[in-house]
Amino acid sequence: MDTWLIQKTGYNTEETAADGNRFLCANGYMGLRGTVEEAGTDAFPAITLAGVYDRFEDRWREPVNAPHALSVQLSFNGRALTAADPDIKAHSMQLDYRYGIRSRDTDFGPIRLRSEWFASLAECHLLADRLRITAAESGMLEIRTGISTDIWDINGPHLFDFRFETGDALLCHAVTGQAGIPVAAAQSAAYSFNTEETSLQAEKGIYRVLRTHVDAGDELSLHIFAGIYTGLDTAAPAEKAETLCLQAKEQGFDACLEAHCDAWDRVGQQSEIKIEGDENAELALHASQYHLNCIAPRHAPNMSIPARGLSGQTYKGAIFWDSEIFFFPMFVYTQPEVARSLLVYRIETLPGALRKAEEYGYRGAFYAWESQEGGTEGCTNFNVVDVFTHRPVRTYFRDKQIHISGDIAYALRSYYDITGDRSLLEQGGAKVILECARFYISRASAHMDKDSIDFTDVIGPDEYHERVTNNAFTNRIILHTLQSALLLEDIFSDRKEWFAALLSELNYESDWQLLKKLCAHIRAPRCREGVIEQFDGYFDLEDCSLSTVRSRLCDPKEYWGGDHGVAGTTQIIKQADVIAMMALFPNDFSDDEIAANWAYYEPRTEHGSSLSACMYALTACRIGQMEAAWDLFMRTAMIDIEGGGKQWAGEIYIGGTHPASNGGAWMIAALGFGGLRMKNGVPELHPNLPPQISCLTFPITSNGRQMTVEITHNNARIL
Amino acid sequence: MDTWLIQKTGYNTEETAADGNRFLCANGYMGLRGTVEEAGTDAFPAITLAGVYDRFEDRWREPVNAPHALSVQLSFNGRALTAADPDIKAHSMQLDYRYGIRSRDTDFGPIRLRSEWFASLAECHLLADRLRITAAESGMLEIRTGISTDIWDINGPHLFDFRFETGDALLCHAVTGQAGIPVAAAQSAAYSFNTEETSLQAEKGIYRVLRTHVDAGDELSLHIFAGIYTGLDTAAPAEKAETLCLQAKEQGFDACLEAHCDAWDRVGQQSEIKIEGDENAELALHASQYHLNCIAPRHAPNMSIPARGLSGQTYKGAIFWDSEIFFFPMFVYTQPEVARSLLVYRIETLPGALRKAEEYGYRGAFYAWESQEGGTEGCTNFNVVDVFTHRPVRTYFRDKQIHISGDIAYALRSYYDITGDRSLLEQGGAKVILECARFYISRASAHMDKDSIDFTDVIGPDEYHERVTNNAFTNRIILHTLQSALLLEDIFSDRKEWFAALLSELNYESDWQLLKKLCAHIRAPRCREGVIEQFDGYFDLEDCSLSTVRSRLCDPKEYWGGDHGVAGTTQIIKQADVIAMMALFPNDFSDDEIAANWAYYEPRTEHGSSLSACMYALTACRIGQMEAAWDLFMRTAMIDIEGGGKQWAGEIYIGGTHPASNGGAWMIAALGFGGLRMKNGVPELHPNLPPQISCLTFPITSNGRQMTVEITHNNARIL
Repeated sequence: MDTWLIQKTGYNTEETAADGNRFLCANGYMGLRGTVEEAGTDAFPAITLAGVYDRFEDRWREPVNAPHALSVQLSFNGRALTAADPDIKAHSMQLDYRYGIRSRDTDFGPIRLRSEWFASLAECHLLADRLRITAAESGMLEIRTGISTDIWDINGPHLFDFRFETGDALLCHAVTGQAGIPVAAAQSAAYSFNTEETSLQAEKGIYRVLRTHVDAGDELSLHIFAGIYTGLDTAAPAEKAETLCLQAKEQGFDACLEAHCDAWDRVGQQSEIKIEGDENAELALHASQYHLNCIAPRHAPNMSIPARGLSGQTYKGAIFWDSEIFFFPMFVYTQPEVARSLLVYRIETLPGALRKAEEYGYRGAFYAWESQEGGTEGCTNFNVVDVFTHRPVRTYFRDKQIHISGDIAYALRSYYDITGDRSLLEQGGAKVILECARFYISRASAHMDKDSIDFTDVIGPDEYHERVTNNAFTNRIILHTLQSALLLEDIFSDRKEWFAALLSELNYESDWQLLKKLCAHIRAPRCREGVIEQFDGYFDLEDCSLSTVRSRLCDPKEYWGGDHGVAGTTQIIKQADVIAMMALFPNDFSDDEIAANWAYYEPRTEHGSSLSACMYALTACRIGQMEAAWDLFMRTAMIDIEGGGKQWAGEIYIGGTHPASNGGAWMIAALGFGGLRMKNGVPELHPNLPPQISCLTFPITSNGRQMTVEITHNNARIL
Repeated sequence: MDTWLIQKTGYNTEETAADGNRFLCANGYMGLRGTVEEAGTDAFPAITLAGVYDRFEDRWREPVNAPHALSVQLSFNGRALTAADPDIKAHSMQLDYRYGIRSRDTDFGPIRLRSEWFASLAECHLLADRLRITAAESGMLEIRTGISTDIWDINGPHLFDFRFETGDALLCHAVTGQAGIPVAAAQSAAYSFNTEETSLQAEKGIYRVLRTHVDAGDELSLHIFAGIYTGLDTAAPAEKAETLCLQAKEQGFDACLEAHCDAWDRVGQQSEIKIEGDENAELALHASQYHLNCIAPRHAPNMSIPARGLSGQTYKGAIFWDSEIFFFPMFVYTQPEVARSLLVYRIETLPGALRKAEEYGYRGAFYAWESQEGGTEGCTNFNVVDVFTHRPVRTYFRDKQIHISGDIAYALRSYYDITGDRSLLEQGGAKVILECARFYISRASAHMDKDSIDFTDVIGPDEYHERVTNNAFTNRIILHTLQSALLLEDIFSDRKEWFAALLSELNYESDWQLLKKLCAHIRAPRCREGVIEQFDGYFDLEDCSLSTVRSRLCDPKEYWGGDHGVAGTTQIIKQADVIAMMALFPNDFSDDEIAANWAYYEPRTEHGSSLSACMYALTACRIGQMEAAWDLFMRTAMIDIEGGGKQWAGEIYIGGTHPASNGGAWMIAALGFGGLRMKNGVPELHPNLPPQISCLTFPITSNGRQMTVEITHNNARIL
């Protein structure tokens, strides 16, 4: 078994959406969905650009897909050859997780096409594809390759004013509709056969047409290179794209591939977890690590990662708390510069968070639930479409999921705690923590007749229960934010003047006193027999089984949450909530407390979010429930191999890759099984190795120094 | 045109539910739905008992229907005679609004049946029916009359353990399922013809069977009398019921009718509004006054009136704010002893309100939204059934409609202001006001960083918008409650010790200071161009027309409110809300302010509640918009003639009579057109007579003295 590869045989038009995710190539700058070269929009091909957003009319704002510059259409004796044709002889597709290379092998009968494409990790604007065409019959082969502007968009179109140029490279230039951001794609091609090359400007794209007579046994080679730039990268995206693809052609496919593989080898050295004992688990870990590493923003110092990575436009390409809670840990331990980029994105988007708080009548920083560029809130008030009436439903993710600010403060604090490096706090991080704390001060609900302070009308991690009071997770992360703000005084005890100036700049004097007051009086969670109540009144909700709740669905695509959803009025929760709190604050709780809450909440959890299983697995490791931990680990790590996870929320398509699960798999392996803790750059191990694994090895990086953790059932050491 | 009568010709099985309400007879103790004597449960016959509630299994708790003791089944030559038979020759039904007598006239062909029944206003446990049967052919007539236990219930059954006795009277005895309350019905009969009387105990009831040969032209007379008692009235309900119906038989129908009519004449003298100039309006006023007067609890000093009166079990037979805001005014001006009973009900159910507040973690009195006996909350958390999924929907009427406590305090204060009589305050009313104010203190949301105090997560009168913050109406009625509590010190300035002892008994010392603080800092409503924002953020909601919202309905029975409803996310409101505030607090606002708000809100109001039109009409009178006022008056007053109003909320049947509109019609006529104000028992007039009326005359009662108000376009005087 090759644990670095997935392969799929046959072509199923029903599965192209899922396959596009499973066979994704990406490099942090863009994501190239795992389709075949000839795919039409019905197969959901896309080159999704990180951090470039657009809104068409009143539809959802989402990332922009570039023109498809790896488009290739074959025809033989005038008959179009496509993998979707049910009469083809054979088709298979592979993805190599070590190097992020999607390959295909399609036997159309008279013609066989093999190709390998990748999104270069060495040069983030470059895509390359190597095609080998073998003839089994003689006849006339026509190859059209170029840049298709027949772009699949969920809420598009987003590109307008197309201009095309031909020459050594084909060039397509357009601008986005809302902000007029230029987007350019250029394509060059090298081929091994004699042909009369003509260019064709079609309604939707520009192509070179290569016609050649082939005889049985002939093998043709075609290498294509695409350069993609936008106006956010450079003032001259078209020129850059053209230059890049021509340079790549000159260097040749092999050289491009070598640079790409070298880059992946470096990433592997930094982050690859090796396990022995279970090949399925190895494969799953390779998949998880690939899918998270391939979307890391290594090309920019201030970008974060969307919740569905770069697998398309779902979830609006927005940055969620996934970044801080689920992606951040792997990066901070293995590639701290990426972790830093995720947080710098938040520091730089503080103005957006201040604006959002003001919009709601609060002070401080209320970060966007679905953050787009500049911290713009991408989440609407109507984030679900009802399956029965087809009307949008008022949801409260945007306005009530206030734990997002605390999640960001948590990661900023973790970055300092783990690395011992306070420079990020100095460079804006402290300001973010203080503004998040200030937001909570202004959001707090006090009483006239008692001291305790509530947080009312919130949504916790479990989104099925909207508008609740004193969500345990939310109150805890708020308290942590307040404590982190107060701790800044100690962290900067040797820079008292600087810190005083910061407080003064932020007009923070009276808020500093309120911080202490809120710390002292924020409502502690209620308990019943050792079980923490998820929010006030949760225990009074109907206590029925998951299968009972599921049996009440009238439509499989129904949204489960809110007052109309089957779960909203019961104790069935979407995802870890109290348990997520216990995973994030392990020192607050004894093993017995965690065990009691785990036993209560796990059976009541739908795991309807990819953010859930990981939290249960981490806490299961803590209390030694390794069988459950293993099951949840496998469920987490396999998600992007199986193409699982929820595909729909009401009528909204939410499919894509699951980087939170990918990050979760790393967390379970390294932090759960490995029991890794790091304080001020010094690692410690408290391993809980499951019986399925005989040896677990992984690298970590601290203060620029790489170390290797190695754990067996007899031994645990850091080399 | 007889403006004291409605008549309907023909029998339509589709309309029996509506006709049961339109032809209702009632006397405060019970309601006898306007059906024919032979009606089966498919025609919704009922004798609904005031204040007797029961719950069957997990269904809604609702009032109990007594066994139907006026059941009469005729058959001729073995063929059953029913008005529902499409082959009958003629059928008509009438209701006399002056005396509350429902009469019918049905020509079955061989037999004609005429009858008049009523629920005695002189003796609240008595029902009587006079039947005249005329033969057009000779043949064998069989009459079965007795007590049917085939009871129509919405959420029943409620009666169990039936026992039957025969004798001079037929007797049926049962107990309610939940509390085991005995319910007894007895029937006596007097008839003019020779027959062999036998008794028949059927599966569902007990009957006497009268068989007689008739010849064409024969006329038979049958008078039946029913006595109804429950265990809440007496320890021996069966005996009482039996005694009563036998006494009535002995006195005879005419004597019973005379006593009944005398009682109605007294009510008429106390309350009858006379208008000249528009017969339709006269009829509508007669209908409105009849429907409200017939359900007044004159037999008990401590009862209130359900929102659907005694027309059946809809709205769970519960007491809503309708009692204080819509029923109370007519009674306090015309029959203060009834107004007092409504409020004594609230004083006596204070313990229920204290319990409800405690249940939600608050102090003070949080009155039930749907109050049943003892102040028990009848409102569930799931008060609407979704038409698409048939699942109950979480609604927030029970937990968020906090203005109910303030509405009660408002009526208590009004009773004092209008009558100048403080005895009700002494006898528990002051305590209620103080506990309601205390509830608001504990329910208030303060801020850590500013003085203003919000009321968050409430529902105002406009129920379509759930869980809003700073609803203008709610905040104003809260402020009034606080002011009324503080005013008690002045009202009892000559009884300082008594008042101090009351505060001490209630442990009110620290709350007294908080009252003042809350008064000073409760958030005032926001305004835009003179228009008060109904709640924080209302102006940000989609501003579309009523017809646009209606066009989005996918099902005519859909509930409009909440996050899924078509209105909930728009500015379309169910009923007067800001305008209701202006109607209740006219001195707060200038004519211009009222006009601006009226112009803004009226087009955005669905008037989906019978509580709406009256508030718009009252404010229209104030600003001299008499055309609109007249239209709204007619809409309000005609409602129980036309049988209009919403029949459904989701899948829940909510039909019945509309006492709030009935009370509203009185308010528009007397307070709006007549401009009546009373302060300390001294009336004043500020008339706004619409052009349709040439003369308006009505009685009022103050300090036991009756006066007559007479208003023409030239003159207004109090005689």
